[in-house]
This record gives sequence, C-alpha cells and structure tokens, in this order.
Amino acid sequence: MAKGLPKRSEDYSAWYNELVKKADLAENSAVRGCMVIKPYGFAIWEKMQQTLDKMFKDTGHSNAYFPLFIPKSYLSKEADHVEGFAKECAVVTHYRLKNAEDGSGVVVDPDAKLEEELIVRPTSETVIWSTYKNWIQSHRDLPLLINQWANVVRWEMRTRLFLRTAEFLWQEGHTAHATRGEAIRETETMLDVYATFAEEFMGVPVVRGIKTENERFAGAEETYCIEALMQDGKALQAGTSHFLGQNFAKAFDVKYADQNNELQHVWGTSWGVSTRLMGALIMAHSDDEGLVLPPQLAPIQVVIVPIYKGEEQLNMIAEKVSVIRKELMKKGISVKFDDRDTLRPGFKFADWELKGVPVRIAMGARDLENNTVEIARRDTKEKATYPLDNVSETVEQLLKDIQENIFNKALTYRDEHITKVDSYEEFKQVLDTKGGFVSAHWDGSGETEERIKDETKATIRCIPLNNEQEEGTCIVTGKPSKQRVLFAKAY
Amino acid sequence: MAKGLPKRSEDYSAWYNELVKKADLAENSAVRGCMVIKPYGFAIWEKMQQTLDKMFKDTGHSNAYFPLFIPKSYLSKEADHVEGFAKECAVVTHYRLKNAEDGSGVVVDPDAKLEEELIVRPTSETVIWSTYKNWIQSHRDLPLLINQWANVVRWEMRTRLFLRTAEFLWQEGHTAHATRGEAIRETETMLDVYATFAEEFMGVPVVRGIKTENERFAGAEETYCIEALMQDGKALQAGTSHFLGQNFAKAFDVKYADQNNELQHVWGTSWGVSTRLMGALIMAHSDDEGLVLPPQLAPIQVVIVPIYKGEEQLNMIAEKVSVIRKELMKKGISVKFDDRDTLRPGFKFADWELKGVPVRIAMGARDLENNTVEIARRDTKEKATYPLDNVSETVEQLLKDIQENIFNKALTYRDEHITKVDSYEEFKQVLDTKGGFVSAHWDGSGETEERIKDETKATIRCIPLNNEQEEGTCIVTGKPSKQRVLFAKAY
Ligand SMILES: [Zn+2]
Ligand SMILES: [Zn+2]
Repeated sequence: MAKGLPKRSEDYSAWYNELVKKADLAENSAVRGCMVIKPYGFAIWEKMQQTLDKMFKDTGHSNAYFPLFIPKSYLSKEADHVEGFAKECAVVTHYRLKNAEDGSGVVVDPDAKLEEELIVRPTSETVIWSTYKNWIQSHRDLPLLINQWANVVRWEMRTRLFLRTAEFLWQEGHTAHATRGEAIRETETMLDVYATFAEEFMGVPVVRGIKTENERFAGAEETYCIEALMQDGKALQAGTSHFLGQNFAKAFDVKYADQNNELQHVWGTSWGVSTRLMGALIMAHSDDEGLVLPPQLAPIQVVIVPIYKGEEQLNMIAEKVSVIRKELMKKGISVKFDDRDTLRPGFKFADWELKGVPVRIAMGARDLENNTVEIARRDTKEKATYPLDNVSETVEQLLKDIQENIFNKALTYRDEHITKVDSYEEFKQVLDTKGGFVSAHWDGSGETEERIKDETKATIRCIPLNNEQEEGTCIVTGKPSKQRVLFAKAY
Repeated sequence: MAKGLPKRSEDYSAWYNELVKKADLAENSAVRGCMVIKPYGFAIWEKMQQTLDKMFKDTGHSNAYFPLFIPKSYLSKEADHVEGFAKECAVVTHYRLKNAEDGSGVVVDPDAKLEEELIVRPTSETVIWSTYKNWIQSHRDLPLLINQWANVVRWEMRTRLFLRTAEFLWQEGHTAHATRGEAIRETETMLDVYATFAEEFMGVPVVRGIKTENERFAGAEETYCIEALMQDGKALQAGTSHFLGQNFAKAFDVKYADQNNELQHVWGTSWGVSTRLMGALIMAHSDDEGLVLPPQLAPIQVVIVPIYKGEEQLNMIAEKVSVIRKELMKKGISVKFDDRDTLRPGFKFADWELKGVPVRIAMGARDLENNTVEIARRDTKEKATYPLDNVSETVEQLLKDIQENIFNKALTYRDEHITKVDSYEEFKQVLDTKGGFVSAHWDGSGETEERIKDETKATIRCIPLNNEQEEGTCIVTGKPSKQRVLFAKAY
C-alpha cells in the first residue's frame, strides 16, 4: 500500500525504489543484480513488447533467435567491441557439477572444463554477424532485417531495478544492407520508431540526437539515441540505434556479390531498447501516491469499485457493472471489477492509485438510485459524477485525454528544463539547482567532455538532430564551436 | 530447394536434419549444441507461443520473469532435483575478461572469480520457490498461478536441432496452492491445455498419461505427460505437467496461514513445453517434398504464384490478386503474393512446398480469360480449377479441411501403431519391425523397466490416463500385472 511511499521531493531515489516494489513491478533476486519482474510489472512490459513488435514488423523486420552463449574469441574480433564489453562479462567455464566428496553439496567438476570459455551475451553483434556470413552471398539476400527479443547480461557493480541490472530483457535489431546510405536510413528509421513509441505510447517526450565519440556504442560509426528527462531533472537514454558502417562485416568477413558480381562488404545497423524503458515510464509520470500509467500501456485501464452494504446491494451493483464492463470491453478497454469482500473501498482506491490504473469508477447506493457513477482520473485526481447511460463513451474519451495530458505535462516539464548557458559557472549552477538538460557550446574534444564529466558528473547526452547552427565558444576552453549540445546528469 | 532432400524411407534422420535446414527453420551455431532459429522457423514458434499464451491466460495464469542465474547452493536444496540436473549444468565462475599479457586476445580475469558459482537455469523451480517464500503468507495469496517464457540450458552431449539442444526456448508454469487436491487439478488442467494445443493446433494426436517413477521429473511426486508418435514409429514427449507435492515448499520453506491461522506448507505444480514441439510438428506431418504445416500454425497460409509472360500480363494478374488478397485478409487468412521476377513458377512451387504453405493459388493467362484460379493443397497435393468469384470461401473451407485431414492422418497412423503384445519375443519383434507404441503388461518394478530399456532401447512412455484395467503377467518376469503400459523407442 501507498503507506510508507517516500515523497519525491524528499528522497527521489528512495521514492523510486519503494514504488517499484510496492506497486508489484519488480524486486531484487537472491542473485546479485538480477531482478524478478513481477506479474503486474511484466504485464506492462508485455504491452510494450507487443506494441514495438508490431512496429518492427510493420517496418519489414522478422524475429529470429540466436544463442545465449558467445565463444570468447568472437568478442575479440572487433577491436572496439571487446574493449567496450570485456569488463562486464559473465563467463561460463564448466559444464557439470558433481557431489562434493565431504557430502556438503555440489561442486564444480574440474574434469568438465570447457576448452574455450563462453560469454553470456552482453549484446549479440558478434554471434549474429558470424551467422550472417553464411546467410549473405548475393545482393538478393539484402537487406536482411532481423530482430530478436532476448535476455542479456552485463556484470554491473551498482544496480537498480529496471534502470541498471546485471540481466535485463531487451530487443536487439541487427540489419545488413548493400549500401551505406540504406544502412543510415535504417538507423534513422528505427530511431523514429523508438521516438514514436516513447511519445505516443509511453507519453514520454524525447530528444532525438547523436552521441559523441566518447559515448558511442563499441563498434559503431555513429550512435543515434533518444533522450528523456525524468522528474528529478536527470536524463535517461531510452533507446539507441547504431550505424555500424562495415565494422562487423569486416570483422566477420561478410560480403555480397553486387549487380556486377563484385564482392563488397555489407553495411550494418543494430538498435535496441530494454526493460530500462520500465524505469523511464515509472519515473516520468508517477507521483507520491504511486504509479501513473499512460492508458496505452496500462494492463488494467479501468477499475470498478463497488461501495455497498450487504450482499443484496453488491448484487445490484454487480448487475449494472456487468453491463458497463461489456460495453467497455467492446471498445477494447480493459476493465477490472474489484469485488474483493475483505477490503474497504478506501483501501482499494489507494491500492489502484498505487498501481496507476488510469480510470477508476465507483458505484454506491446513491448511484444505484440516480443511475450514475463516480469517475476519477488517476493523472489529475479529478472526479465527477456521470450518468450511467454513456459511461463507455465518457471513459473512452477520458482515456484519450489522460494519454494526451500525461504527455503534455511531461513535455512542458521537459521544455522548461532545457536551459541555455554561456559560461561554465552558469553551467554548474544550473546543474546543481534546476537540473535538466543544459544546452551549451563545446569545443568538440573528448578531453573537454571528459573534464566536464569529472568535474560535474554531467555527460553530453546528445547532439540533437537538425540542431540549430550557431557560432559560439566552448564554455570550458573558449575554443570556437558551431553548435550547442545537450548536457545532463543521467541515469 | 527440395533438391537433395533425402527420402524418409531411406534415411529418416537425415531427412529431418536436411528439412530443418533447407526449409529455413534452424541451423547449428558456432557454439556446440546451441541453435540459431531462423526467421521462418521462429515465425512458427511465435504462432505456438501466442496460442499457448492465450490458453494460459484464459486459465487464469499471469506471466512474470525470474533470473537466468541460479546460485549453486539452491540447486542442492531439493535432493532429487540436484541429482537430476547437476550433470548437465553450464556454470558461470567469473564476471570479467582482461587483455592477455601476450597480446593474443582476452582471457578470463582470475581476480574476478565469483564467491559462489552461478548455474545457468536448466529449469527454474529453485529460484522461483525461493521467491515464492516471500510472496506467500496467507491463504489469500493462493493460488499463485505464474508462467514464464524463457531460455534454459542443459548441457547435452548429443544434440539435434529442436529435439535436443543445449539451449532451448520454453515456457515454464509454476503454481502454488492451498490444497493437494487443487494442485493435482491444476496439473491435470495444464496437461489438458497441452493436449488440446497439440491436437487442435499442431494436428498431432497425443496419449495423455503419467510417467513411471524412473521417468519422473526430478523433484516431482507425479509427472503427467503427452506422448506423440512420429512417422518413423518413435515416440516424442511433447509436454509435461508435474505435481510437485510439498517437495519444493518444504525445500524452500514456503508456508501459508490457513483460515484457522495455522501454518501449512503449500502444494506446487510445474509444467512446460519447449521448442522441441517444433521437432514434433515437423516430423509428424512432413513428407519427402518438405514441410507440411497445419493451417493453424502456418506463418503463411496461402501463397499466390503468378504465371505470366511479360509485364502487361503480370500487371493484369496482380490486379486480380490484390482483390483476392484483400478478401482473404478480411477473413484473417495470411497471404503472400510471390511476384519475384527472377524465379520460374516451377521453382516457386517447389520452394513453397518445401516451406509447407498449406494452400497454393496459381493464376495464369488462361485463368485471366476464364476468371479462374488453380488451387493446390499441400497435404494431399490435389489441385483443381475454381471460379474466381468465391475464392476466399473456397480457401477458408480448404484450410479447415487441411487442418482436419492432417490430424486424422496422424491419428490413423498413431492408432495403427499401438500394438498389444503378450510376450517379450513379440515385444522385441514389433519394436524392430513395425515400431510405434507397444502395449504390454509390466510388473511395475524399476528393475524390469531398466532391463527392458537396456535390452531394447524402449522406455515406458506412459501409463495412459483412464487406462483399462486388465489382469495379466509381466512380459519379462511373468509377475502379475493389473494394466498394460505403453512402451516405445523415443526421441
Ligand atoms: Zn573481409
Ligand atoms: Zn518448512
């Protein structure tokens, strides 16, 4: 229950952790850094999956499945890639246990040592490109547009539910193309898919941009990203789409015969979003009473709570509710009738608020008399009495309004938290007080970027796409700059 | 292409392996025993998943997600369970790689050794029951009905695509109940779900039964199973549903306060089907020309092949095809128009036969004149000319007929291959010549079962549910027996 949920203004971080647990979204497991995604949390993730999966298929992609394990040697084939991932790999070294001689349990059987160690995939470029080598011979085999839904493991030292876990769930698209231009278009198309999903379904406005060289994916020529802003003023990278150039094609020798029958290396992309989106969804909208879910992703869109004395009244209410339910379901709206008889209405109200159900309908004795219901919306907490006659139309419209309002609220907050600064002093001050994105001139060097990160913990979140070109000078070195970039402290 | 597909009668095993590869279903990866599921194969698996997932939800289950890794010590908590799984575990011992000092690549960093080794889940009872301990306090928390879709790893020495792979995809249901009776009912309900899925969607008739003690799941009190028969006379276990009694509840100390506020251990079940079903689907129906897919699970139900000379004719055909397509899609039928211009119709026909598309529509110059199409069914290879007017009704009916025919054909074969025998001689002879299920009396002892297995490679597939009770004597020991059981060589 909401009792005990810390206030955002007092301890945002504790508020998040408690909310994730109390709303039954996820919890830590006995294995360090690995989470259990609970049924209610998983139902939200399933909605995300279904929506994204359809968007991927509508843009021509097919799903497939590649192995969990990667031979250690594969990781080294692309020089940047191994640097990026070797330090956080779960390594399988043996394939059998045996009984301990002292009877204390089971131990690793030293005779069952693998000749070559296997890495639990941190991402699948290497194993997928080693497969593509056999799938691609001719230009007729291109483009190859494949996605996989999978679990991946990166051995993080400091973990937080959804935001940073050793194992997480994600999708990873891996495509191969005949030309550089086509691969870049694919990279941009998928960034657009992610941005559309974030804004129209999650209700989270995002900045589309590209990463600096320092922040680029290990093995990519260019990393595109969408960046969202959380209520505490920290940014969150919500999805990335990588133009891989010919790096993996060269590392795994993937070539196609072009129209003139000449062999060419193919061009690649990869792109992914993960259960991290759950963290973004939770942090972007929720309040001190609990989750606020956008109707598009809410597993339960409407909850109906009866307020009654005695079984007879409950039966009368239940009869009317069953009509409402049918009408709502006919419109594709998901409904739960909470007729648990051991709990009081007030408790139920708080419980469904905590769980973020967008619309709550209450029906009591007076409503029975007047043929009305009370409808409350989760986002604004407004409530009003409506005639029973066209409840389903009222609710349908309300769900649309809520979806829009949630987005607009987040958009206003985000737009108010992009601050232009022209000195390093101002930069630090904004970061420390107001937070959010800080838009500043930067000299384009990795050293300056590194220095700012060391001194302020802020990183360059992205160079926005279609960025305004503007002459200026770097806030740190005073060197000339042609455009502002977005800095922020980030998750 | 079908060219080079071995005949079933000559080498069934080679036929299967080649079919899986040539029909683009799956292939071996560079990692021993791990497969790559290719887009066409994965599309079939997705159809299976969607269908089963709906059936699970309709029976009250929710999805969740539990960690990939299991602490080594967890595995030992249930005595039978560890015996069953310790010998085939992938073991994670380290969490970091580093550059080799000789510059030869990356090596395991000895400083990054885990305090306790982690097992890649071979099945998740232990990690799930350790979680349920915190989720279950009161009878109001029961029943707990959870499923997860996941990858699991069992280090098999001899592997075959889909049938036996080190990593495979599956779903595992894990439920907890207040009473023994309710848990048994759940076990049986899920067995029913699996049987219904196998018969109505896969078109594969199954025997519902229970396993002998020798063949029981490690940690179960009773294992229920569905057993299917392949075209080579070998059986295949297509799904299992386990009544766990209180074994895991006791191992992980999971108790609930009953209505009288007394603490009781809960009762458990677990149940699963895996990508092994893909193997069953392929082997049950396919022929020497390739896959035969039941319409209910075919990713493409209808393929339309134009037979034309010149672009003008193609355009005229394409115009009519677009009308047919729309009508079929309105009926929820999936259609592909194969207008690839570099391939001849005969090649396309063979290609779609190989891929098992249930219905093929061809349209040529004469069809244009006569307002007709040629429709061919994949299962019987019958074809005929039909008027264009009500093609969608014709196809709709045909898909139903094919689904039914595939099942009936498999059922007839299966029923003809259940042979009653009353002596060990006859038993061996039937196994060696006719194959299939052999129905025989057995004295009920594990030793006799073991001896038969050693001498004939046949195992007891199951004791059928609602088995006819019949006095007899064990074919090996002559000891008294009250019922026949089903033996077979199996995958
Ligand atoms: Zn090369
Ligand atoms: Zn106990």
